Amino acid sequence: MGLSEFDLIDRYFSRSVVRKGCELGMGDDCAILSPEIGLQMAVTVDTLVEDVHFFAGVNPRSLGYKALAVSLSDLASMGAEPRYVTLALTIPDADECWLQGFSEGFFEIADQYNVGLIGGDTTRGPLSITIQAHGVIPEGQALLRSGAEVGDFIYVTGLIGNAGLALQSYLDDTKYCDHATLRRFNMPSPRVEAGMQLRNLASACIDISDGLLADLSHILKASEAGAVIELAQIPLSDSVRQFQLITGQPGFAVTAGDDYELCFTVPPGLVDEIERLCNTWSYSCACIGKIDSSKKLTILQDGQRIEITSNSYQHF
Amino acid sequence: MGLSEFDLIDRYFSRSVVRKGCELGMGDDCAILSPEIGLQMAVTVDTLVEDVHFFAGVNPRSLGYKALAVSLSDLASMGAEPRYVTLALTIPDADECWLQGFSEGFFEIADQYNVGLIGGDTTRGPLSITIQAHGVIPEGQALLRSGAEVGDFIYVTGLIGNAGLALQSYLDDTKYCDHATLRRFNMPSPRVEAGMQLRNLASACIDISDGLLADLSHILKASEAGAVIELAQIPLSDSVRQFQLITGQPGFAVTAGDDYELCFTVPPGLVDEIERLCNTWSYSCACIGKIDSSKKLTILQDGQRIEITSNSYQHF
Repeated sequence: MGLSEFDLIDRYFSRSVVRKGCELGMGDDCAILSPEIGLQMAVTVDTLVEDVHFFAGVNPRSLGYKALAVSLSDLASMGAEPRYVTLALTIPDADECWLQGFSEGFFEIADQYNVGLIGGDTTRGPLSITIQAHGVIPEGQALLRSGAEVGDFIYVTGLIGNAGLALQSYLDDTKYCDHATLRRFNMPSPRVEAGMQLRNLASACIDISDGLLADLSHILKASEAGAVIELAQIPLSDSVRQFQLITGQPGFAVTAGDDYELCFTVPPGLVDEIERLCNTWSYSCACIGKIDSSKKLTILQDGQRIEITSNSYQHF
Repeated sequence: MGLSEFDLIDRYFSRSVVRKGCELGMGDDCAILSPEIGLQMAVTVDTLVEDVHFFAGVNPRSLGYKALAVSLSDLASMGAEPRYVTLALTIPDADECWLQGFSEGFFEIADQYNVGLIGGDTTRGPLSITIQAHGVIPEGQALLRSGAEVGDFIYVTGLIGNAGLALQSYLDDTKYCDHATLRRFNMPSPRVEAGMQLRNLASACIDISDGLLADLSHILKASEAGAVIELAQIPLSDSVRQFQLITGQPGFAVTAGDDYELCFTVPPGLVDEIERLCNTWSYSCACIGKIDSSKKLTILQDGQRIEITSNSYQHF
């Protein structure tokens, strides 16, 4: 083999980290951080396992990109500004071509969002990737799941169900999937700027990883509230809309996971401001319903209540 | 199966975290930390993979204990006070008996060192554990690898080679291994208090995970220095000493890994103070050599230079 752990790190992952508040990056037993006064730090950790979260043989560049995108999306949903990340990479062997691709994808998105890799661990074993991301938030401005109030409006960014359709197309080669849809699945865009702009505007926020219904339910549970949403308001791509119609699955998009869009709630008095803000984004943002006091999630299709059996991803 | 990811977390890993500076623990997309003014944060991440870092079928309680011990040892080597930890746990299935044991061992050491579990991820896949630990250090007082100066004395805490001997006994059932030796391997004690007390005294510090020679070499490389050490000064248990003698391996202990003792350097002017400090510890602390300007590591056996081929653990 000939590639030691230290060679591997030096060759593919060593970059000097020049980031506000990072006193020491890789190379010692720990990294040392000094966040500024008045900032809080948001911390999130996610693992992606081969054959569970991604297909064996997937393009390593898009894997490196997506692995970090998933963690940045968690920071986005808290309104945090991404700062530092650690990478614990477990690989069956030190395949240099794979490592080259993976590190390129990883640093592509790291550079895009100005995130510094401050430490990590590389170990031999079945392929899996654990990323911990750290972001900063002005004190007391974190967007929590627990802040939704009765009467608040519910919004989602972007289009829902694209990642689900892409996954479907990998599984059964469905013809409804186009290139843009595949890209949203393989290299999702975490809504980091949106999250930061929603500070002091959104009353609650979450990112859509398990599926819109499942993730909205997390907001409702944490906020001890209910909601009504209207399926016709859910923003869909033409491909997803066509797929739902032809296969007779009106709940496909809202139960599919992996979209990494934001779902957030807004007090009635701030709706005008939110609408103005959304208009500045390069992706859509739609109002899909309202928080109520029912403590359950009611789904309407053209005004009629329907039941959707969630097929949201179960980890065990 | 019936145990969802959320059930699993609730049952085995949910504890309210009451820790200085932790505004929000598990349950949202990120944890929120607010370290105090004047403190820096040390961050370290380690992965343990089944059949690579631990034997399949190992007692889950000692595994939970050791997994966190390894990360706390990295904090110790920087002089950091442990505060928060995240746990990314990948398991083949939700075996409740295993989870019960693992979480018990994990929280046993977490409570011992007053560390709060602030977040994590549980996924399905081949058994592996990634732990990220966060500790705090008064500004500018971190013990780095890079501070050793020519003339500094080199110390190690505790006894060296016990973990190596225990590993050997699992592999070939050697008779030289006793219960205490096995315990040092299965449930090592990170030298957290020692690390904190060494702030402003040690010029460089590292924890012994890869083996004393390999880890001391990291200090030498980072400090651009060399060293001479005397094998007769290395503190060994009777079991390890006997094993080395009978098998004719004088370099066994200094190349064996996994001891999680500290190796540190001390300026000549602070040696008296260090000796007084070491006397207050419940484990030994020995001076094993001196930093010199040679840029290489010289090993003496009773004053004669010898060569030891390092068999330190190679990750790939």
